[in-house]
Amino acid sequence: MSSSNSSTVPHLELTPAIILVEPQLGENIGAAARAMLNCGLTELRLVRPRDGWPNPKAVSASAGADSVVEKAQVYRNTRESIADLHLVFATTARARDMVKPVYTPTGAAKEIRQAIQKNHKVGILFGRERSGLTNHDVMQAQGIITAPLNPAYSSLNLGQSVLLIAWEFLKTGDNTPEVEEVLGDGQLARQAQVQGLIEHLNEELDVASFYRSPDQRPAMQQNLHNIFSRARLTEQETKTLRGVVARLAALRRKISS
Amino acid sequence: MSSSNSSTVPHLELTPAIILVEPQLGENIGAAARAMLNCGLTELRLVRPRDGWPNPKAVSASAGADSVVEKAQVYRNTRESIADLHLVFATTARARDMVKPVYTPTGAAKEIRQAIQKNHKVGILFGRERSGLTNHDVMQAQGIITAPLNPAYSSLNLGQSVLLIAWEFLKTGDNTPEVEEVLGDGQLARQAQVQGLIEHLNEELDVASFYRSPDQRPAMQQNLHNIFSRARLTEQETKTLRGVVARLAALRRKISS
Repeated sequence: MSSSNSSTVPHLELTPAIILVEPQLGENIGAAARAMLNCGLTELRLVRPRDGWPNPKAVSASAGADSVVEKAQVYRNTRESIADLHLVFATTARARDMVKPVYTPTGAAKEIRQAIQKNHKVGILFGRERSGLTNHDVMQAQGIITAPLNPAYSSLNLGQSVLLIAWEFLKTGDNTPEVEEVLGDGQLARQAQVQGLIEHLNEELDVASFYRSPDQRPAMQQNLHNIFSRARLTEQETKTLRGVVARLAALRRKISS
Repeated sequence: MSSSNSSTVPHLELTPAIILVEPQLGENIGAAARAMLNCGLTELRLVRPRDGWPNPKAVSASAGADSVVEKAQVYRNTRESIADLHLVFATTARARDMVKPVYTPTGAAKEIRQAIQKNHKVGILFGRERSGLTNHDVMQAQGIITAPLNPAYSSLNLGQSVLLIAWEFLKTGDNTPEVEEVLGDGQLARQAQVQGLIEHLNEELDVASFYRSPDQRPAMQQNLHNIFSRARLTEQETKTLRGVVARLAALRRKISS
């Protein structure tokens, strides 16, 4: 993707390029590649990696994301690494004395998604492990991304930084419901089955003289009903619970007989 | 925090406990601690860490988050590790054949924040590096968390998994604007200063016979005005640009004289 002309690529395939500026450790390049692929990003660019390129440690640390590592393009400086891009963001942990919009990862991800939908090619710059991006790097970007982390301990490692941004980008294209009731192989019980279970339980509790006084009975029955009505039982679960009630009742009858 | 009674702790101090079940590598425990502290979480619990405890590799990999590592509590099994908690989530990469709600990290983070605001104590289970959580572990949780990652490559390392969840939790308590125009040390220019710059430029362009025909002039002036009006210049920037215009004009006069 790095060599293709973005204006001819259908926008659904476009994802932002991750650009590591003078990364020091191959392990971190590999971790960044892994985090990228986890989130569906595949275009990795490297500006003057300290230990040269290719780097076997990057491949082993990528833990299966070696396709990303192998396709990585290497550049001589930041300027050349972004020349074909329409929109560039610079990630920084600390505030810079620059007149430039500062985005949260969430805010930047929305802007990136919008740009990509217009077939704009986007890149995100990540700095050196020790010192981050220089002002000369940041100057070249249209926006800054800073994650609002714990101010007393905001230093993320390189792979973690890439993951946060890639994850936020992934989410802008994801419509998984925030919570979903999963039934496994089961079918949700119809109310008649839940009602049957509760009636069965109430009958056996009456037989077993569960209620010490008749006054207790309505409130306690309501509580029990609530437990089982809010549980959203499956068909199989109502059968299992009826079996439990029947068995406990049978055991009691055996003991009391 | 791990030994205190949650009902007596002001809810602002409560954060979810991160519970690593049978973690194998000290490096991953350290990376998890670092990711936690990045996001303001401090309570780490370990169930039967493979290489024993304490583990010097966990301290060195925590990169300064050793306070989290040192305070970690060790438990004999998952059951004991969650006994004091009100609400437990289990992180899994793959679907389980279980009747249980499945949350995205975002959805779970909202639920966790709500629970904490009610002074409920929450924990999140993370599985073994190789094999994740067993069904026996997952069974004990009230909800499952699954990140909707690239289905072709969804394996996150342990530190990365902890970061995603901790980051989403952090965000539920963060109100940083998604994008903010930052002016550095500068002051936003008043429109009179921007107008002055544009008029200065227009005058010099007229003197320099910039417009080949008078028809060009209105549209071109409008375009130039748009460039500088949307730039949201600071006071200093308007002065800098007026200096640039004056200097270029002076140079031209010198050449043409």
